[in-house]
Amino acid sequence: MRVRAVVSYDGTDYSGFQTQLDVPTVQETLGAALAQVTQETVTVLAAGRTDAGVHAVGQVIAFDTAWQHGASDLQRAMNAVLPADVAVRELEEAEADFHPRYDARSRHYRYRIYDAPLRSPIGRRYSLHVPYPLNEGAMGQAARLLVGEHDFATFGQPTQGNVTVRRVFRVAWSRESCDWAAPGGIRDAGSFLVFDIEANAFLYRMVRSVVGTLLDVGQGRMSVEVFEEALASCERGQAGKTAAPHGLCLIQVHY
Amino acid sequence: MRVRAVVSYDGTDYSGFQTQLDVPTVQETLGAALAQVTQETVTVLAAGRTDAGVHAVGQVIAFDTAWQHGASDLQRAMNAVLPADVAVRELEEAEADFHPRYDARSRHYRYRIYDAPLRSPIGRRYSLHVPYPLNEGAMGQAARLLVGEHDFATFGQPTQGNVTVRRVFRVAWSRESCDWAAPGGIRDAGSFLVFDIEANAFLYRMVRSVVGTLLDVGQGRMSVEVFEEALASCERGQAGKTAAPHGLCLIQVHY
Repeated sequence: MRVRAVVSYDGTDYSGFQTQLDVPTVQETLGAALAQVTQETVTVLAAGRTDAGVHAVGQVIAFDTAWQHGASDLQRAMNAVLPADVAVRELEEAEADFHPRYDARSRHYRYRIYDAPLRSPIGRRYSLHVPYPLNEGAMGQAARLLVGEHDFATFGQPTQGNVTVRRVFRVAWSRESCDWAAPGGIRDAGSFLVFDIEANAFLYRMVRSVVGTLLDVGQGRMSVEVFEEALASCERGQAGKTAAPHGLCLIQVHY
Repeated sequence: MRVRAVVSYDGTDYSGFQTQLDVPTVQETLGAALAQVTQETVTVLAAGRTDAGVHAVGQVIAFDTAWQHGASDLQRAMNAVLPADVAVRELEEAEADFHPRYDARSRHYRYRIYDAPLRSPIGRRYSLHVPYPLNEGAMGQAARLLVGEHDFATFGQPTQGNVTVRRVFRVAWSRESCDWAAPGGIRDAGSFLVFDIEANAFLYRMVRSVVGTLLDVGQGRMSVEVFEEALASCERGQAGKTAAPHGLCLIQVHY
């Protein structure tokens, strides 16, 4: 049967999703768990090939297996052998031709920024610390320019082929409060600036490049107008720095 | 001058606060940072000697230094050389006889439980995963029995001397919602059961032993009445299992 599963992982200790030689990857880790559980060699397909250090709470995978003991037993067996930083959140039988990548209508990523004067040891693995003040209004204006169908060549390379046009369905900046970073009345902590972006698909490193460029706007190093020109230029060199991977998380894939 | 500082750390990679031979500790890490910054050999005192793997957002330390460049420069210099999992949140000159341990009126600890059928890779470092349902009413009843002055010998050994009487000022079970664990509508995630306890002082491993025993009550393996008898027995063997360190965090020390 073909199986569809939703997987979550802490990407810190992985060299990305896709299997490479001699480095730990999420794909290899899932494949090894499946081999152990099913005694088969299983090819794991995924909705998105997250980069080294990028997290996921809603990665969608698919694979074929001759497993006979039902979906919930397979999920339990996989979770029993997977390491603590990877878990199967949902698992079910899918249509025989289900493909997590080609069938996806959209992907939703979130980039989390900890904008506070002092860094926070707890939670540092899941957010980018930005110690300077950010102009949220300007970052919001610039971000809205991304919505719609555009050639996003400024912000990344295609993952295959050479088409760099993508459709962004929505962007949002918001505040996420979380006691984890600093409960107990510690000042300047526990509030994260989060950037949500949903698109039909993304170019390689697109979200991190967009966020890095929006941070230039937030710092006043780039105006909203120049951001607009950068987007229109389709020149990779017009983008700001690519933001670090550990702030990024693949939230959900829609079908 | 004597300096008072508030320190936060991710305890995952440390063998506790207190310096030991051949293993990384928070005290040694702070001492090494101070040595680098001040060129002095500095003895670091702390309010509480957290165990291996226990976190802190409000550990209070004190030390003497001949540093001449002001408190905020010292804080900045320390944060520049400390590793990412330790940070100085506040730093100020204190009275010459300030002692973070002896002068403390109370300590507030928080223990975080992720009570959901499936484990969560993101945030697993800061919470204990409990996959079975918990009777929160019974755990609340049992916890309230701890308030007041009691001999807590059931739940730990004294850190020095042989007095096992401590005064618990308050306990509370509550829910903490956090998008970190699983944003984006993932089921059964993002909600933590947290136990707050504030006391004048704690015995060695007392919070973790109390939490482990309360989890027995929550699972129905121990009644509230037996919990009350266990507390009164002053016998270490009457406590449940000591809960894992990674759910525990020193939140704040009051003076």
